[in-house]
Amino acid sequence: MSVIVAGIGETPMGKYPDRSVYEMIREAGNTAIEEAGIDKSQITAAYIGNFNGQQLSGQGHFGALVMETLGMSHVPSMRVEAACVSGGLALLQGIEAIRSGRHQAVLVGGVEKMTHQTTAAVTGALTSAMDVEYEAYTGLTFPGAFALVAHRYFYEYRNVQREMAQVAVNAHDNALLNPTAQMHKAIDIDKVLNAPRIADPLGLFDCSLVTDGAAFLVLVSEELAATLGNKSGHRQVRIVGSGHGGDALTLQGKDSMTTFGATVRAAKQAYAQAGLAANDIDLAEVHDCFTITQIINTEDLGFFEKGRGGDAVAEGKTARDGAMPINVSGGLKAKGHPIGATGISQAIEVITQIRNQAGERQVKKADIGLTHNLGGTAGTCVINIFQGE
Amino acid sequence: MSVIVAGIGETPMGKYPDRSVYEMIREAGNTAIEEAGIDKSQITAAYIGNFNGQQLSGQGHFGALVMETLGMSHVPSMRVEAACVSGGLALLQGIEAIRSGRHQAVLVGGVEKMTHQTTAAVTGALTSAMDVEYEAYTGLTFPGAFALVAHRYFYEYRNVQREMAQVAVNAHDNALLNPTAQMHKAIDIDKVLNAPRIADPLGLFDCSLVTDGAAFLVLVSEELAATLGNKSGHRQVRIVGSGHGGDALTLQGKDSMTTFGATVRAAKQAYAQAGLAANDIDLAEVHDCFTITQIINTEDLGFFEKGRGGDAVAEGKTARDGAMPINVSGGLKAKGHPIGATGISQAIEVITQIRNQAGERQVKKADIGLTHNLGGTAGTCVINIFQGE
Repeated sequence: MSVIVAGIGETPMGKYPDRSVYEMIREAGNTAIEEAGIDKSQITAAYIGNFNGQQLSGQGHFGALVMETLGMSHVPSMRVEAACVSGGLALLQGIEAIRSGRHQAVLVGGVEKMTHQTTAAVTGALTSAMDVEYEAYTGLTFPGAFALVAHRYFYEYRNVQREMAQVAVNAHDNALLNPTAQMHKAIDIDKVLNAPRIADPLGLFDCSLVTDGAAFLVLVSEELAATLGNKSGHRQVRIVGSGHGGDALTLQGKDSMTTFGATVRAAKQAYAQAGLAANDIDLAEVHDCFTITQIINTEDLGFFEKGRGGDAVAEGKTARDGAMPINVSGGLKAKGHPIGATGISQAIEVITQIRNQAGERQVKKADIGLTHNLGGTAGTCVINIFQGE
Repeated sequence: MSVIVAGIGETPMGKYPDRSVYEMIREAGNTAIEEAGIDKSQITAAYIGNFNGQQLSGQGHFGALVMETLGMSHVPSMRVEAACVSGGLALLQGIEAIRSGRHQAVLVGGVEKMTHQTTAAVTGALTSAMDVEYEAYTGLTFPGAFALVAHRYFYEYRNVQREMAQVAVNAHDNALLNPTAQMHKAIDIDKVLNAPRIADPLGLFDCSLVTDGAAFLVLVSEELAATLGNKSGHRQVRIVGSGHGGDALTLQGKDSMTTFGATVRAAKQAYAQAGLAANDIDLAEVHDCFTITQIINTEDLGFFEKGRGGDAVAEGKTARDGAMPINVSGGLKAKGHPIGATGISQAIEVITQIRNQAGERQVKKADIGLTHNLGGTAGTCVINIFQGE
């Protein structure tokens, strides 16, 4: 069963002390539903990504909360959580609900409100994505975990500190052209290399943002899409392949710290389902929680040889006008990382590019795009492949 | 596609300051897998119910945590959360994964560790299941919310304080025969009526328990079940119907406070899918977070007329040897309520009864059983119907 993206909607990403979670849900959710040209009564299920409203705001049960906020209380819903891949996994549940024929139209969404908390509280809430008893209690935080990954990568391959800095520069450059992005500030390599260290070798600009935001999609079956008539007149986008991979929650439990098994397994499924290979992909949004993570991801996805992801960045291949544009949106690094919404926000960029609606940051060829969303220290991965008609 | 229960496993329910969450997962998870006679490598997906490890223990990302704990890190997984129906909803995801043909064998589980926290912290964590900004900030807690429901029920129908007390007495009586139950203590109606008030008209014995526990199931397709050969020799149990209903998260958003729309909608789906009606059900485990909730649930499920659930209790119909045995396990009230595990623990009781393995608490006729699991102030409901071969 083919899955069609009928509508998309997201809030601008940023720090919004005066915007409630309800307001963000209404803005993003109603935009997606209106664009789909669908009546709310036609939507029969909803899957909501939220990472940690419980620790950040004392709020759980986000499925029912979102549905009531959108005036759709009777629609059955659930919150999906797998750390930073909560949004991607909610999207996957929606895709599977349509693919299996169980539903004709579903709402998938993600929301996170984070910036009202102190940095310490956010750091604490983030560690719930790792193993608390074996890892967090030792003092490990996520910058620390990915700093260990980076050092190991330097040891197994080579030092890519400078290429990591270029990843950050590209992200900021791209975000300058994205009105939805949180960060609108040009930087250069020296600024990244000389920035305060967070966890060596990761400096301030190697780390993604703390963001408030919401992102929603309406997914429909091919049959229903035909009746909706695409009133917006955009190019139809289909989800043609998906994958969901697991790996150990802990760093010490993994087979490798520099090849993420969750990504490898999810990619294999997604490519097989789509009948496509890495070199068929025109652009990708990958999970750049840290700059080193982007480099590893592009290797694990098969875009570049293992150990050569840094070279690809240095050679400009991942830039907006390169052979394999990565994170044209600005990524988690500069568009923002509203955790539960991130995976869906990645999808919105790829869909927007395929529709040729990305304005100044539009890439030349955008027929097939991929999203890669990772949870925790690469414990869970979801990949989706989108194709224009 | 028919869904077969291949294996079940749960920890005893209770207060376990010396047992880690890992230990509980291993005990329940490995028991279910061993009983299924399946190799771990045959299980290709996992769905884990956990309500609020994030606030209670700082731990999220329970899918990956459970998989690593069971030595199955490569299996893709996710945490499902919808307040107190997190377990039932995880079970439903597993059922749909088999029904759709996507998977041949899945693990579903739930776990919650609660008793290490203070009562105030547990009460705070529980309120994340309601709307925090509109309800919890006014001082409302769950006993308060269901006390409002009870008063409204008294107003619309009649005062059933005494019948609510009988619900508690039945639960304690049943739990005396359940070695897995947390509460082993006989009580009488006077004790319930004279107990300290928690939120009038709910006294101490009208409220369910705070519990540590884990519960797991292995679900398989009919084809795979045939190859496993049922080594345990128990009666095969099939899941023949399921439903998932939504309603407003807030009390004020509901059409009714005394008929739970989420239950009504889920029941309609489950009965239709199974091709069965309420009077075909031999026994049920229903969500008795409070005694009044059980009475309302048995009406919403169609077991008794609206407003007559109290009469049914008084007449002994819901007792273990009654015409419609309810919560023979002891229920949330006396078996226990390890929130993320509760929906799966309810299923284990129904399966055990259908298999005729319930020992002293075995009911006479147990061919078809139903589980009813509710989240928050009845914002989300999952119902499953089980049938013996």
